[in-house]
Amino acid sequence: MSDVAGLARRARVASRDLALATRATKDAALQAMADALEEHDDEVLAANADDVRRAEDAGTEPHLVDRLRLTPDRVGAMADGLRELAALPDPVGEVVRGSTLANGLELRQVRVPFGVVGLIYEGRPNVTVDAAGICLKSGNAALLRGSSSAASSNSALVEILRVAVDAAGIPADAVQLVPADSRDTVKELMRARGLVDVLVPRGGAGLIRSVVEESTVPVIETGVGNCHVYVDAAADLDMALVIVVNAKTQRTSVCNAAESLLVHAGVADEFLPRVVAALQEAGVTIHGDPAFASYDGVVAAEDDDFGREYLSLDISAAVVPDLDGALDHIRRYSTGHTEAIVTGDQRAARRFTAEVDAAAVLVNASTRFTDGGEFGFGAEIGISTQKLHARGPMGLPEMTTTKYVVTGDGHVR
Amino acid sequence: MSDVAGLARRARVASRDLALATRATKDAALQAMADALEEHDDEVLAANADDVRRAEDAGTEPHLVDRLRLTPDRVGAMADGLRELAALPDPVGEVVRGSTLANGLELRQVRVPFGVVGLIYEGRPNVTVDAAGICLKSGNAALLRGSSSAASSNSALVEILRVAVDAAGIPADAVQLVPADSRDTVKELMRARGLVDVLVPRGGAGLIRSVVEESTVPVIETGVGNCHVYVDAAADLDMALVIVVNAKTQRTSVCNAAESLLVHAGVADEFLPRVVAALQEAGVTIHGDPAFASYDGVVAAEDDDFGREYLSLDISAAVVPDLDGALDHIRRYSTGHTEAIVTGDQRAARRFTAEVDAAAVLVNASTRFTDGGEFGFGAEIGISTQKLHARGPMGLPEMTTTKYVVTGDGHVR
Repeated sequence: MSDVAGLARRARVASRDLALATRATKDAALQAMADALEEHDDEVLAANADDVRRAEDAGTEPHLVDRLRLTPDRVGAMADGLRELAALPDPVGEVVRGSTLANGLELRQVRVPFGVVGLIYEGRPNVTVDAAGICLKSGNAALLRGSSSAASSNSALVEILRVAVDAAGIPADAVQLVPADSRDTVKELMRARGLVDVLVPRGGAGLIRSVVEESTVPVIETGVGNCHVYVDAAADLDMALVIVVNAKTQRTSVCNAAESLLVHAGVADEFLPRVVAALQEAGVTIHGDPAFASYDGVVAAEDDDFGREYLSLDISAAVVPDLDGALDHIRRYSTGHTEAIVTGDQRAARRFTAEVDAAAVLVNASTRFTDGGEFGFGAEIGISTQKLHARGPMGLPEMTTTKYVVTGDGHVR
Repeated sequence: MSDVAGLARRARVASRDLALATRATKDAALQAMADALEEHDDEVLAANADDVRRAEDAGTEPHLVDRLRLTPDRVGAMADGLRELAALPDPVGEVVRGSTLANGLELRQVRVPFGVVGLIYEGRPNVTVDAAGICLKSGNAALLRGSSSAASSNSALVEILRVAVDAAGIPADAVQLVPADSRDTVKELMRARGLVDVLVPRGGAGLIRSVVEESTVPVIETGVGNCHVYVDAAADLDMALVIVVNAKTQRTSVCNAAESLLVHAGVADEFLPRVVAALQEAGVTIHGDPAFASYDGVVAAEDDDFGREYLSLDISAAVVPDLDGALDHIRRYSTGHTEAIVTGDQRAARRFTAEVDAAAVLVNASTRFTDGGEFGFGAEIGISTQKLHARGPMGLPEMTTTKYVVTGDGHVR
């Protein structure tokens, strides 16, 4: 049996020093982490080769093996990511608001780290390095629970990072790997209330649902996106075509890819043949309502198609009678991630942005823009689809909480 | 059996209109609510008399009956509270940040309501009116689950508020009372994930713990405060005396009252006789460590005294060897609400505010200042002791989330 509580207690102790570390110390640690990764990339690649061999022996699908595989370039990209974090401003210590009260008390609301952050994630080993870096820069000790398929890679990476962190004057326990040898370690993380301040699950819908439902530690839910593109009656149809194809196909495996297309009935006769042809030419399978299904090659949508996050070259599609019909449909099927309208009508755009309840609502732009990098945040731990604390792409400030510091001179009530 | 899910669905429908209501409409509704309460105060008082009679028949303690009892003045105070809310700025629609990205996309992060907020509370009927008003002003439909002891009062209040809300052009279901006839309605609220956006429990430690542990709906935890006052070696002892007595006795039943006193060993000989005498004169029972217990009338502290939130004229007290000892003690026993230091030493103040992990850290001021009204927020739904979303006194902005609105002109990646 693993001792997640023990790891969490060590993280808590480390978090105290880390919370007080200056930006200069943290940035030096990030640079040292980057240098160490590049210096020891042979160790990382050797450990990764073990994971890849194990995955291949188990008959893992080639595209999943590819996600797991590291190369010198990919290790270099991780190191560059850490250096970019060093260049970002430190969120800790920012005064969010402040005033002097009528009685002379000085009130300041200051950003401070959460303390101990638990990450539960699947897939690529680069998440291990990204998460370690983002947590360190935001002053949080990280408990990293990656996938068992990447266990050797993650273990090698974390060992290298810990040595670098320690040498830079931050306790090594600021970065710890939680064993992935059993599902129990996920359960223990979820029940470590009081030891872990926040849990961030990253991965498939099933993982996220189970963490949200079972965790007593506060959770920031990330990433499931059944994103819609609604083509309004007043849309520029050339623009709509480009946006739909981009939103669906530019990268299919990500949460901000479009999964469902809605078209206003008034432009259906003109737009449907064009969009069906363009999507099919890009290799997309359309799961359509009866209006779409009358076109060659379109598959008749089943009931559950409109609620699906395909993450593949598939899209559900329906004709709606009007803007209200689109809003009703989105209200029913949205996962609250990203919804887009294509329209030239100011009133339709205004209603859509006001009435759609999602982390991001886009007008005349591809859903693919909902992203920390695109938004200019410079680093992203995930995209929150919950309403509490953070909503949408989460950068460094979202990995902090605040504290009120109140200074008086003998003030009493 | 009650149908909390049915109430929540009606709240959801109402929340859509309410989210779009202008400030003018919401403020008119708040004024109408206030007027209606005063106009119908006879109905409120008659319903309240039923609750009071029931409580007295059940042998409820007099101070609890007093908390339950309404008078024309108390109804007037509720109405005034609603009018003050009308005067506060509307948090909805505030642009929290915004920029034009390098590619020309216009990015705005805008405050929007949560949607449906559930309040679970004990005690005074005025919370019903406060919570209804704060939710309405912040654009949220309210599901109010009060105490069964106040069932008649709450029912009368909510009925009056609903008629006023409806007449002002906001759906009456924006304010709904959840039946208090069974614990099951609390359970149903806690499991109404997807129907209720946020739950705010207000009340004793037991209620809050059970909601935090059992709820699948996101929770904002409020209010348990084991608040410390640490008197440093460099304290102005006259100032310290005034602050300790004020923090403990100005109002004992509230979460920001002091519950524990720590004194630096270097000033113990001088300060202990003075503070013991002053507290005892104010009627306070001191539960002290051996140093304190050597004084007449001081009760020897049991192990669990240092973790207790007395909410009464009791205080735990201990001598600590130095600032580090105080920090260690607070780290062990703090509930993360409010911690205060009295010191004239800049370095001690700086260390205390940096190292104490609490919603509010005060220097040379009474713990009683951690309060939405005192902080100038004008309204308070509670004091959050969690780190996610809101920490410390929660005003209207804390009752909202945000949405990114992104506007382009055919932008694709």
